[in-house]
Order: sequence, then structure tokens, then C-alpha cells
Amino acid sequence: MKMILDERGKKYVLKEGEEFQSDLGIVKADVLDNASVGDEVKSHLDHSFKIIKPNINDFIDIMDRRCSILIKKDIGTVLAYTGLGAGSRVVDAGTGAGAIALNFANVVGETGQVYTYEIRQDFAEVAKKNIATFGIENVEVKNQDIKEGIDEDNIDLVFLDLPKPYEIFEEVHDALNLGGWLVVYAPYINQAEVSYRVAKKLNFYDIEIFETLERGLEVRQQGTRPKTRMVGHSGYLLFARKL
Amino acid sequence: MKMILDERGKKYVLKEGEEFQSDLGIVKADVLDNASVGDEVKSHLDHSFKIIKPNINDFIDIMDRRCSILIKKDIGTVLAYTGLGAGSRVVDAGTGAGAIALNFANVVGETGQVYTYEIRQDFAEVAKKNIATFGIENVEVKNQDIKEGIDEDNIDLVFLDLPKPYEIFEEVHDALNLGGWLVVYAPYINQAEVSYRVAKKLNFYDIEIFETLERGLEVRQQGTRPKTRMVGHSGYLLFARKL
Amino acid sequence: MKMILDERGKKYVLKEGEEFQSDLGIVKADVLDNASVGDEVKSHLDHSFKIIKPNINDFIDIMDRRCSILIKKDIGTVLAYTGLGAGSRVVDAGTGAGAIALNFANVVGETGQVYTYEIRQDFAEVAKKNIATFGIENVEVKNQDIKEGIDEDNIDLVFLDLPKPYEIFEEVHDALNLGGWLVVYAPYINQAEVSYRVAKKLNFYDIEIFETLERGLEVRQQGTRPKTRMVGHSGYLLFARKL
Amino acid sequence: MKMILDERGKKYVLKEGEEFQSDLGIVKADVLDNASVGDEVKSHLDHSFKIIKPNINDFIDIMDRRCSILIKKDIGTVLAYTGLGAGSRVVDAGTGAGAIALNFANVVGETGQVYTYEIRQDFAEVAKKNIATFGIENVEVKNQDIKEGIDEDNIDLVFLDLPKPYEIFEEVHDALNLGGWLVVYAPYINQAEVSYRVAKKLNFYDIEIFETLERGLEVRQQGTRPKTRMVGHSGYLLFARKL
Repeated sequence: MKMILDERGKKYVLKEGEEFQSDLGIVKADVLDNASVGDEVKSHLDHSFKIIKPNINDFIDIMDRRCSILIKKDIGTVLAYTGLGAGSRVVDAGTGAGAIALNFANVVGETGQVYTYEIRQDFAEVAKKNIATFGIENVEVKNQDIKEGIDEDNIDLVFLDLPKPYEIFEEVHDALNLGGWLVVYAPYINQAEVSYRVAKKLNFYDIEIFETLERGLEVRQQGTRPKTRMVGHSGYLLFARKL
Repeated sequence: MKMILDERGKKYVLKEGEEFQSDLGIVKADVLDNASVGDEVKSHLDHSFKIIKPNINDFIDIMDRRCSILIKKDIGTVLAYTGLGAGSRVVDAGTGAGAIALNFANVVGETGQVYTYEIRQDFAEVAKKNIATFGIENVEVKNQDIKEGIDEDNIDLVFLDLPKPYEIFEEVHDALNLGGWLVVYAPYINQAEVSYRVAKKLNFYDIEIFETLERGLEVRQQGTRPKTRMVGHSGYLLFARKL
Repeated sequence: MKMILDERGKKYVLKEGEEFQSDLGIVKADVLDNASVGDEVKSHLDHSFKIIKPNINDFIDIMDRRCSILIKKDIGTVLAYTGLGAGSRVVDAGTGAGAIALNFANVVGETGQVYTYEIRQDFAEVAKKNIATFGIENVEVKNQDIKEGIDEDNIDLVFLDLPKPYEIFEEVHDALNLGGWLVVYAPYINQAEVSYRVAKKLNFYDIEIFETLERGLEVRQQGTRPKTRMVGHSGYLLFARKL
Repeated sequence: MKMILDERGKKYVLKEGEEFQSDLGIVKADVLDNASVGDEVKSHLDHSFKIIKPNINDFIDIMDRRCSILIKKDIGTVLAYTGLGAGSRVVDAGTGAGAIALNFANVVGETGQVYTYEIRQDFAEVAKKNIATFGIENVEVKNQDIKEGIDEDNIDLVFLDLPKPYEIFEEVHDALNLGGWLVVYAPYINQAEVSYRVAKKLNFYDIEIFETLERGLEVRQQGTRPKTRMVGHSGYLLFARKL
């Protein structure tokens, strides 16, 4: 998959064999097919475009999103605390537009695998399309209710972004590897609370809840200061380990 | 590499072919060699131990550290914002005990590569030993001053944890792929400020500085509340992209 | 001074001897003059209005503001850390629309006094009008540049919200009581930094800089959670004491 | 009441008619009695001491505290949001060692009044002694359970730091002035949640919950940075107004 960057820094996905059209002009399909990453191409209006290799975030920024997606600070916390890496096996639910599954897939690579459960058919379709467009093979979108069972085992990470995640913690425990992690994303304190108590009862280890706050710093002519606006809350993350 | 977990949740690295000794007793070398991940073994004092597959964090927790290491919230932010994944190529400096290089290596996997620069010979030795013990092959520790040059190119991420990182931003720009990221870890505001101004001058894109704060939530019998103690600051992260 | 509260919770100042007009109708002047705090009056459109005794915040909310005012969390921090109380003597600069002077005046009461310096004549006029409307006598608005000298002495608190506050720290030291406080409001880190160094050199004691972050908690049907939006930054407060 | 400050910045209360003793020497009673605020006196070991007029915080720092007291950031938030000022009438419970009552008394001054309820006799005694030592007359310590009734009315602020504050919100409503505030200090989220729901039901207005976080900034030779340590949580503050 290739992407194209216009002079304003706006990014577009290129579809193979198709010409590219924007308000800055048209680039012919054969020009694009012959261009490599790093090349500059011209539109018929003489505007320049750069061919870039999109990374996972470039793609997620422009893909069909339809529902809110996890923000980067939270994804990062999951990655860092679970030690997810190349070769890991992940289950996540619900899929939504597939953003978090794509993030996990990017890290676990071809030697790993992501299984993502989505109860709504429309979301599952969008996710499948997004994943196909990005062109990776290590994600399986399952249009199933995860509450009816987890088909996989030997899993390193089960990530749940569901209204009542604690209803399936027993199944999660069974699906996990020794040393594997359950992670819950909970916008409400009450979800985190109940999840904590249930995880405790089920003999998960190293149970912790936290949230992260991200704060920008602005460097201006007049001086440096934290940004005036900031996201006050996204969700809590609960971590629990099978040991 | 295997790890052993005692009844109190304490973890130890097993050295191949050697017996294991702790205050809870000795486990013979041949018992350990025959045990697989998930097995339980007994010490001569009849205590149980579980064999686990350590993940990167288990290992970093117990390895020889000797100098302060990046905390997880910051590592996670780097991973999530740069979209680092299996197959990526990374340069980092300074290595220290190798923790951040191990974290990157865990994500980029065998199809990726990490080059880590350390000016001090004693740190470089510790890092080499740690990496060898964990048993991965995709990290090259270089006992070199990164200010004298970056030998690699086609890099997806250059991560700098140095007193004056901005002195080598030009070299970083040359070493990066189109779309690659420069990330600076800066404990002091002034480092972040100068880094911002230099990155701006050198035509890096999407330059942003932020910090993350992590806040625990405690679920107790009497009620739920944020934890009383919290880390007030580790460092700022500056992100800048070559486009 | 009296205020009137409509059925939607909107507040208005009543001007003595004048009738009250709003989209919910007119209340005659003599009705208002005869009404006491707590009474309900009717408009000619039969809407109810309550007569209330405005507190300082009610008034500041609706007064002529014209320039940004200090937010409550910062005012509170100044009050709590300096131990300002009834009878204290305060100097502040610049006045702006007079909000912070009104806040101080509210606390120091009739036995205390606030002197507020404003270099711009238009702001000083607005502030005078606001203070007169609220009807307190313990604030003196001075249309003077505080950099040309502080006329008062025996001051318990000098509060500076100026671009380069540190230029007059020596004069501040002279004006303060033993035990009195200098407080600086600094939106930029660099202002706080220089202020710290200058205050140190001038033998102020107990010098500290901090900022406060305020975070709302939302109780909804579905659960409880921190508010999504939050102010990321207003300013740093530097405290320094003459001892 | 006078205080004495030694060369290290340590503060002590002087008791009338008594000599002062510390590791830096003794100052005779008659020397102290003749000294005014601002004077320097010498001990028999030739160390210097300054006579200062303590403010409320100096006194609270050294008084008999015996139980945890509200921290300044929270006191400030209460003062700023309720618009408490000279002349206000306040009820608070529980008294503890009297710190918060002293803070309120300092602001409401001689024209205002603080009534503070404490169920435990030992705490009430300590609070009475502390208030007498500081020498103010506008605080009445009541060794009564506030749950059995609030004797006062026409109150501008009722401040509750109790395990189940919501049990007396109806009585609070009766005791308040039109425009008066109920403020609850709640370490646990669940207390804040229930308080919110009860206040809503009882037709309080402008109900809001928030917390403040205070973060120090360190100016050092090497650079400026937020402090490493920070208090992660003290309590939530709920504000609700009678209108």
C-alpha cells in the first residue's frame, strides 16, 4: 500500500491501478504505478505530491472510522505494560472500525496473530475492509459475540472495550497463556471498580487500574507553556495477569 | 530463556544447565531442563515454583540496571505515536543498561533491527550482557559516541535520551526514512524548547512536545479513589517527522 | 446591591431606582425597591424572579470584563497559600477589569485595603465602575504604572500579573510587611523561571512555583467519570516571602 | 500572638511571659516582651531570632494537629468558589484539630462567624485550645454530633468533611441563606457520587464535583522541570448552592 502527501501535508491512500484526484489536480495511474516511496510526482495542475510508505497511524487517520477509536496514549499504555511484541497472539473485542486490531497487528507482525470479535455486522464489515485496504494478513475479524465464547487459546493479551467486560473474565482466563494479560478499557469508574473485584476473585495477579493524562507543551515566540486545552478523560485501563 | 516464579510471586531468570537456588530451596538442573513453560517444579524444601516464559518487562525488572531506565508510560507513548511495529528499523542513544533497546527490539521482532549507541564502555558491556541473556539477536550495541555520526540509514525511528540531543538533528534527518520519526526524551523543559526550535529550523514536520501523567485508581473496601502518590514528572517527549 | 434571578437561573444586577427588563418581562422599580433578599417578584408577563444577595462571584460573572480574568482555582491558591484574611493589606497589578481586586477586597473586608495599579486608562475606568457598582469601599484603583513605584507599605500581599514582574521585586520587598508575600501569576514557564532566580537573589524566602489543574467529575445515569474536557493550563503561581 | 523565627527558618510560637528555649539558645522573657514585630533578638548563645506576626498558616503548621488536615489547594478551592469573604457566616463539621475552622475564621473576620461541630470530645478540646492560642474570637467549637441538628441559620457556607455527609443535606438546606453554599470534601469517589445524587434530589443548584491537582515546578542550575513527586489525590470537592 502506498500513500500520497500533498503540499499542505494532507495524506491520501492510493488505490492500485487508479488515478489520483484532488483539488490540487490529477495524477495519472501509470505515473503512480511507476513511482517508488520517496519519489515526487506532479499533478496536471503542476502541484507536487510525495509518495510515502504509510505507517499504521497514517492509515488509521484516514480510514473509514464510523465509531470512536482508542486514543494513542491509551494504546501506548497497553503496549508498554503488557510487553506485547512481534509474535504475540491477541484477542480483542469489540472491533469497531478495526483501529485497535490494526495497532496490535502492526506490533505482533506476521509471526503473531490478532483475533478481533465484533457483534455488529456493519462494524465487522467496515473493519474487514479497512484491514484489507491496509494489506495485512494477521488479523481475523470475527462477527461474533465474544460473550458466547472465545475460540482461541494460548493468547498473550485479551483486550476488552465492552460495557460489561467482567462478564467474561473466566473465559478470558482460560484463553490466556501463563503470563498473559487481560486489559480492560473502561470509560466509567464503576466499570473499572467491578472489573477489579471480579478479576481479584478469579485469581488474576498484578491487578492495577490507572489512567494516563497527556499534556502538550507549546513553544512560542513569547515563551513556552503547557497547552491551554487538554483531554480531561478518555478511559481507565485495568491490567490483570494470569500467573 | 525461561523464568521461574516462586509462591510469593517473585521472579528469577534461569541459567541454562544450572541448578536454581533461593531461600525457598534448590531445584536441580535436570529437573529444570526437562520442565516446559506452565509446569510446576518442587524445591528440596518442597516449595512449588512455576516455569514461565518471561516477557520483556519481566526480564527488564530483574536484569542488571545500573542506571535509571525509561518508565513504561513513556515507552508506550513512543510506541503508539510513531507506529513502530514488527519489521521497523530503530536507532537509539544512549543505551544505558539496554532497557529501551530491548523494548524496541521486542516490538520490531526478527524482521526489524535496533542499533543502540552508548559512549560509556561500562554501560555498553552491561547492555550487551543483558541482551545476550534475554536471547534476542536483533539489537546491535555500539560503544560509540553518536555525536560522531550515525552509521545507519533507512531508519524508522531515532530515539535520543541525551543531554543535548539537538546537536545531531541534522544527522538524524539524514538517517531517517521518509515518514520516519525523531523522538527526544527530555527531563528538562529547556531541552525540549531548544529541540523544538532546532527541529523546526531543519524542516521536520508534525513537531509536538508532550508529557504523560499516570494516575492509579485504588479499589478498597471503603470505596474507590485515585492513589495518594503519583509520579509528578519523568520527562517530555518531542516528536518530529521527516516528510 | 441586589441581584435578580430568573426562572432559568440567569442572574442580573438591579440598578437602584430603575425598573428591570428582560425577555421574561418587566418588573416595576417600586416593586423592586420594596422587595427584600429572598422575596419573589412577578414580571408583567407573570414570570417569577427571586431577589438575591449577590456574592462576589455572581457579580464578577456579569460585570463588564473586557479582558481575561484569573480563574477561580488560581485565586483560591493565592488565598490559601498566603493566608490572606480579614484586615489584610494588598497591592495588585495590573488591575484589568478589577476582578482580582474585587476577590481580594471581598476577603480583606472593611478593616483591610486593596490598592490596584493599572497602566491603561480604559481598563482603570472599567475597574472603577465595576467596583462602584458592587458597592465596596476598600479598593483604590490607581491609574499608574507600578514600575514607577509602589506608594504603599506595610503590605501583606503583592500580587503581580504583568509581563515582566521581576523588574520590580526590589520595590515589592520594600513595600511588604515582615512575613508578607509576593505572588506572581505567570502564564509562561520562562517568566516563572526568571522570577524565581530574581526572588532568590533578593533574599525572599520559601520561594515556590506551582500550578494547579482542576478536573471535573461527572455523575451520570450510566456511571461516573472525569469530565472529557479540562483546562490544560492557565498560569504558574510563584510564591516568595519576606522574612 | 507573636512568633519567633530562627536562622534556619524554623518557626516557634511564643507564650506570653515565658522565656524561649531552643538548641540555638535561650531568649529571656523580658527581652521578648519588649520586642516588636520585625525586631531581632539574640539568644545567650548569640544566635539571632526575628520576631514575626504569624499568619494563619504559620500557626497551623506548628499547632497541635493530631489528625490529618485539609491541604491548602483544597481550602483555596473552597474559598474561591463560594466567594467566602469578610462577614460571612460558616458552619463546618467535623472540626478535627480546628485547622479548617481557623482558615475560615481568618477570612470571615470579626464581622463574620464560624460554628464548628465535632463529635469527639478529645478533638473538640484540642481545637478549642488551638483557637484560643491563636487568639481569635469568631469561632465557636461545638462538641456535638451535627447529625442531630444544625442550630444556626442564615449561613453562607456549610462545609462537611464527614463519612456520610449526604445524611444531613436537608438540614443543611434549611440552615443556608438564599445563595449559600454546601461544600462536601470526599476522599472517595463513591461519597461524591451519592452526595451528588442526594443534592440533586433536594433541589440544590449549580452542583459540581471537582478535584484539583497541584504540581510544583523546579528551577535548578541544569534547567527547569516539574517536580518528580506530587500528591496524586486528596479529595473531591462537591459544591451545591441554595437558590
